[in-house]
Amino acid sequence: MSYWTQQELRLPAARRGFHLITQRILDAIPELSEIEVGLLHVFIQHTSASLTINENADPDVRVDFETAMNHAVPESLPYVHTLEGPDDMPAHVKASMMGSSVSVPIKNGRLNVGTWQGIYLCEHRDRASSRHLVLTLQGKRTDT
Amino acid sequence: MSYWTQQELRLPAARRGFHLITQRILDAIPELSEIEVGLLHVFIQHTSASLTINENADPDVRVDFETAMNHAVPESLPYVHTLEGPDDMPAHVKASMMGSSVSVPIKNGRLNVGTWQGIYLCEHRDRASSRHLVLTLQGKRTDT
Amino acid sequence: MSYWTQQELRLPAARRGFHLITQRILDAIPELSEIEVGLLHVFIQHTSASLTINENADPDVRVDFETAMNHAVPESLPYVHTLEGPDDMPAHVKASMMGSSVSVPIKNGRLNVGTWQGIYLCEHRDRASSRHLVLTLQGKRTDT
Repeated sequence: MSYWTQQELRLPAARRGFHLITQRILDAIPELSEIEVGLLHVFIQHTSASLTINENADPDVRVDFETAMNHAVPESLPYVHTLEGPDDMPAHVKASMMGSSVSVPIKNGRLNVGTWQGIYLCEHRDRASSRHLVLTLQGKRTDT
Repeated sequence: MSYWTQQELRLPAARRGFHLITQRILDAIPELSEIEVGLLHVFIQHTSASLTINENADPDVRVDFETAMNHAVPESLPYVHTLEGPDDMPAHVKASMMGSSVSVPIKNGRLNVGTWQGIYLCEHRDRASSRHLVLTLQGKRTDT
Repeated sequence: MSYWTQQELRLPAARRGFHLITQRILDAIPELSEIEVGLLHVFIQHTSASLTINENADPDVRVDFETAMNHAVPESLPYVHTLEGPDDMPAHVKASMMGSSVSVPIKNGRLNVGTWQGIYLCEHRDRASSRHLVLTLQGKRTDT
């Protein structure tokens, strides 16, 4: 018998860059603690911000992510879609390079991740508004 | 009780670039309308085309995606695997940067995505043939 | 009735580059042969190595992946996080570009992938240690 639940989570506007949001996600879906084996799917309902999993310790890593992604997808390319500003089109491309969702294994009521892994919100716009996530939890519950 | 179904979908050959395929996918898996909470997994069975989620409105965005990905993975690098043409090896790398699958939350019989989100076929080859997708639908049905 | 199981798989230290690991994964999760329709989720518990799906035939493709990813995320950028060596920060960024997991459809006891698709371990560090994967299998079993 699989258990399913889905929650929506609104993140307040964040500055352009990479931000750790693991704890906010866990707080929004307490049912995770009852899952013996399962998966947590985290989805972002936007196309100029994204989600990824990376290092959760040194904040410099998040600073360097911004440097590297600006190099890989520069604002200086000859884009056609420029009405929303020079940061908009690169934001779309970075969003697809990072991805619109992460999927994380669960074991015995906890995310089965490495010690140094955290979930990042990747905000690619200069002036973003709040961002909406959809958290879908599925698995086998401890008591079933 | 989780419901599972899997469908295969053949897309006709597309020109090199980024193409919206959300409606084709929905048409191929009508059982989605019966899912109360679930996930749709879309997988491409190829290594020189890929899938991503991005902006579904302005077609210029899809044009600029081609520009940006050609910049990130240029054909001019000193590749060893060149027998299949200069577009082949960049196609493989772009395919991994975008990804071979997307996974989308379902709520009350519909994809629970943002207003501006669509599913893209990313065709990275100059002369592609048709592409095969595997659609795997799972979730809790409305009547269970 | 959905079936769930989760296995952990330790991969021995690999040299920097891209490595086919499909068979190791299949060997670690023999229960896959009993799944009629389902998904295999493969997750890496690290932030400087990653997983992707790409061409399983010509080893030159894996060599060229290293060339292309070094171009997209060069070691020469002005990174702040440099204590662990010049290969470390690019490794984190490459890991997020490729992704920390792959999710693969299952049909009739086999991965429902294309002929040329294989699962890659992407080792982005110069001197890596062993890497841990979490394999989560879910689906409908043949006899249910």
